[in-house]
Amino acid sequence: MTNRQIVIAELPEDALRPEHFRLTETDVPDPGAGEVQLRVILMSIDAANRSWMRGATYRAAVKTGDAMPTYAICEVTKSNSDRLAVGDIVAAEATWSDYITLPAHKAQKLPKVPQLSHLMSVYGIAGKTAYHGLISIGRPMAGETVIVSAAAGSVGGYVGQIARALGCRVVGIAGGAEKCRWVQEELGFDACVDYRAGGLSRALAEACPDGADVYFDNVGGKVLESALNVMNERGRVVCCGAVSQYDTDAPAGPRNLPGAIVVKRLRMEGFIVMDFARDDDKCLRAMRHWVERGQIKVTEDIVEGLENAPQALIGLLAGENKGKRMVRVAADPN
Amino acid sequence: MTNRQIVIAELPEDALRPEHFRLTETDVPDPGAGEVQLRVILMSIDAANRSWMRGATYRAAVKTGDAMPTYAICEVTKSNSDRLAVGDIVAAEATWSDYITLPAHKAQKLPKVPQLSHLMSVYGIAGKTAYHGLISIGRPMAGETVIVSAAAGSVGGYVGQIARALGCRVVGIAGGAEKCRWVQEELGFDACVDYRAGGLSRALAEACPDGADVYFDNVGGKVLESALNVMNERGRVVCCGAVSQYDTDAPAGPRNLPGAIVVKRLRMEGFIVMDFARDDDKCLRAMRHWVERGQIKVTEDIVEGLENAPQALIGLLAGENKGKRMVRVAADPN
Repeated sequence: MTNRQIVIAELPEDALRPEHFRLTETDVPDPGAGEVQLRVILMSIDAANRSWMRGATYRAAVKTGDAMPTYAICEVTKSNSDRLAVGDIVAAEATWSDYITLPAHKAQKLPKVPQLSHLMSVYGIAGKTAYHGLISIGRPMAGETVIVSAAAGSVGGYVGQIARALGCRVVGIAGGAEKCRWVQEELGFDACVDYRAGGLSRALAEACPDGADVYFDNVGGKVLESALNVMNERGRVVCCGAVSQYDTDAPAGPRNLPGAIVVKRLRMEGFIVMDFARDDDKCLRAMRHWVERGQIKVTEDIVEGLENAPQALIGLLAGENKGKRMVRVAADPN
Repeated sequence: MTNRQIVIAELPEDALRPEHFRLTETDVPDPGAGEVQLRVILMSIDAANRSWMRGATYRAAVKTGDAMPTYAICEVTKSNSDRLAVGDIVAAEATWSDYITLPAHKAQKLPKVPQLSHLMSVYGIAGKTAYHGLISIGRPMAGETVIVSAAAGSVGGYVGQIARALGCRVVGIAGGAEKCRWVQEELGFDACVDYRAGGLSRALAEACPDGADVYFDNVGGKVLESALNVMNERGRVVCCGAVSQYDTDAPAGPRNLPGAIVVKRLRMEGFIVMDFARDDDKCLRAMRHWVERGQIKVTEDIVEGLENAPQALIGLLAGENKGKRMVRVAADPN
């Protein structure tokens, strides 16, 4: 029995390509004292993977030779700890691998649900990021207008659906006419603007006749610049990601920063989902409520096979996914 | 008796120059029903004057032919209103003029103090802007490090002195070695970095061995970019002004925005002093407390003569003032 791993062959200078990764095979690791062996089932694919390759962020930088770190849902296959038993389902920071070992206290036991992928999408990191960022930082109110970029992405789709459920006018930004149609028809956004079509500031102004009160930013760059142009006074910008800036060697800041913040008295604020862990129960109760009433559709984009993880990330950076992208490494155990 | 006024001869395309202004003489205006006639005593000179010439902000744009608007301290010289009597001292939005008229309810009666200029500096718009921005948005705590740009300017000097009084380590940014020395020796900052000397990010890192928790930004641009580099996680950026961007036709945004906000979970927030008017009493009590104990020095930079207002503004944009710049149009009446 071998353990496949995908490691960084070389750090990218600009755009990420398949040759920056290498598949290796090692023995399946055995757990030490207090440790567990985990079989990776589902791996979260995030733009953040790319940003970790740029240097230290809220976590240490990923370097050449490292297996790519990933948030993963795993099954316990061996245990040297009272905390966890073989067969338990856990969330953990794993790597792009078939198997990993780690101290049992670093794995978080998950409920057994019919579909594990939901613990990564609507009830997992995507749904929680959308909820906490929108609710705690964006603070939208019924009647306000909310703009969200990467609207067809894992987080953006939930942001818009939550805002709709709260009574806001919701305007998405996505790449390409087909995605924009999907965001409106499938996710029920009031409007969705194609940033690739040009004239984004004008298109946003038309889609937001009353201006915008909240902008949930997943992309940064020119799209952020355009969104700032339509913000109302006292608007809130939720800084969740800057995916347009991760895969380039020439980051460009919006030319209207900090001018727009000064003139319109905006608040821009960043967060990571763990900052609001104490509100996770509240979040999950609300998300279940909206899912059960059909106000939130669960959107998932599952790529099969560990070996396809590099292409899944490269494609995500190019914006090819609709909904939460993840890689299935092994079948659900039940 | 004539009324001198300085009007916009032409809007600047890039840097502001004297020929963008014109001195005119008209009759002294008489107040209508419910109005007062005011003699302008002191006019506040602010970088904001320049930004108003760039287009609509929190106020309407200033156009060719307009007299430059200004916050001013004035004496009531004629009154057609029960609200105000001849001899009253008021604050009002005036213009660069000897006399103006306006509805009495638009003028705010001020206490009679020995030195009217203090109502524009430490107890006026400069001190209040420093206090409200630092306290309500920056939320500094003893032991934290606070950076402030334009540290020798009207607002920056008070920001640093307030932060010192609260027990923070205070690092200024100013232009030129002489100003930096003044900021340290006269205002008591722990350090002051010369942004004109080059290597600002490194110099700030050296001046902030524990990083920075609050950055009070008056300038935007490259200085903001450097300050973001030394911010700690969960830092707060008070967006008070962007003076580096007002007098140019090529605004440039910090390249690390929104990346730094996302990665360090920063909060950046803009405000105008009127947003916190309900806390003005608290502010003035605190400022008096610190002034009486010698923890805040009153810094003023008074230019004599209405006709020198254009040069006073041009010089302010070039950073030549130390302390709150104002133009004296008439002597204090007492």
